[in-house]
Amino acid sequence: MLIETLSVFPELFEPYMSTSIMGRARARGLFDFAAYDLRDWTHDRHRTVDDAPFGGGAGMLMKVEPLHEAIRDISSRGEGRPRVVFFTPCGEPFTQEVAVRLSACDRLLFVCGRYEGMDERAYDFADERLSIGDYVLTGGELPALVVSDAVIRLIPGALGNDMGSVDESFSTADDGGLLEYAQYTRPADFNGSSVPDVLLSGDHARVAAWRRSNAIERTCRWRPDLIDTARLSDDERRRALELIERFHAVDAACDGEAFDE
Amino acid sequence: MLIETLSVFPELFEPYMSTSIMGRARARGLFDFAAYDLRDWTHDRHRTVDDAPFGGGAGMLMKVEPLHEAIRDISSRGEGRPRVVFFTPCGEPFTQEVAVRLSACDRLLFVCGRYEGMDERAYDFADERLSIGDYVLTGGELPALVVSDAVIRLIPGALGNDMGSVDESFSTADDGGLLEYAQYTRPADFNGSSVPDVLLSGDHARVAAWRRSNAIERTCRWRPDLIDTARLSDDERRRALELIERFHAVDAACDGEAFDE
Repeated sequence: MLIETLSVFPELFEPYMSTSIMGRARARGLFDFAAYDLRDWTHDRHRTVDDAPFGGGAGMLMKVEPLHEAIRDISSRGEGRPRVVFFTPCGEPFTQEVAVRLSACDRLLFVCGRYEGMDERAYDFADERLSIGDYVLTGGELPALVVSDAVIRLIPGALGNDMGSVDESFSTADDGGLLEYAQYTRPADFNGSSVPDVLLSGDHARVAAWRRSNAIERTCRWRPDLIDTARLSDDERRRALELIERFHAVDAACDGEAFDE
Repeated sequence: MLIETLSVFPELFEPYMSTSIMGRARARGLFDFAAYDLRDWTHDRHRTVDDAPFGGGAGMLMKVEPLHEAIRDISSRGEGRPRVVFFTPCGEPFTQEVAVRLSACDRLLFVCGRYEGMDERAYDFADERLSIGDYVLTGGELPALVVSDAVIRLIPGALGNDMGSVDESFSTADDGGLLEYAQYTRPADFNGSSVPDVLLSGDHARVAAWRRSNAIERTCRWRPDLIDTARLSDDERRRALELIERFHAVDAACDGEAFDE
């Protein structure tokens, strides 16, 4: 896989892309990375990439021409056309399913605007628009890193084992669609707070049952919205709906108490 | 405001925190930043921060003791206790409203795990848990940067003007709760694609009306889920619901066509 970025801050990507799991996966040839500077596609002395919005308003917009030329030139290089991804609050919400889909691409080009936005016509060059969440950021660089990270870790071998990416929140495996179960490591007792006995029992079947039940319970507690689409047996679903109702009743009883002490 | 991070990759933060809007806001004293290395709170020769999970499973977990000592020591330094934020898929979904709330804090400590997760007991040290989206990342470093960026740009003066953060997607201003309207800059005609005439009219009232209407239309098209909570007049809401229905009918008619060419 080849991941490329187009932005006015190309230097922001290299530190993350050469550290830890990203760095090791890249060193092992599991993906390649290049960061392009949008200003290389300007033709004036000041290397201008932005201009004031028609109709007035605060802030500047990214101009359409440098983006057009840059995407055209980058796309025509190398092998195969990249899938061109823009980041905007108007985009499809980025989820683990989208990460899985993108991880099958040979080539991804992430186009990063700065917060004031882009000339609307620039979005015509996008194969897709993504939003990593309902909040406002100063630019598309962090979204590009977030999506790169989520996608790269799905490349077989990137995590250094073939199991790591299966058993976790939102995974698309059999136990997927739920938050991950609680996990514990040594010491078994920490300042009086101890690990659930079952996890120390060595009984694999009981451990598996506890984890499944705990994952359902946590999802009901913190993200009941995920239960609708989670893959549950009829019994599990019945129990989940009961749990959600019970948590809801507890929350209602606590209502009015301050969140902070 | 003081923003601090605790992680095993402290070097990942400085490049972003010293570039562009973050860098300028920091240079002007609008916030201060420090990145701590969790390994400084280990006591063995290998500076071990992780261990295998009780009950078995792939991957390692972050141990509870170094996190405990580090958060205790960092919190007792300087003035005022920080608000301690952990990142986990089990956390409250991070939104613009949470960003606004956090921007009122004097001190924030972002605790960054690595993807395999933390010993569940470590979450007892958290004042709050956040999730930046329903996807899996290798660590909490990018979430910490995302939340820092969203929060810092809300500090008055950080954007270099006092208007920039008002008029945009998810803003909490009067026109808030909607995606932002389409924006255009020069040239007025780009390869035959032209800017809507009204934006060139110089008629501020018509421009404002077009933008409002465009913001509603875009929200109906791409994020109809936001309409429920958007601040709309009765007339606007009626029109929005009609639009959503119409877009829905178009989508249904296009169903079965492939997403990719």
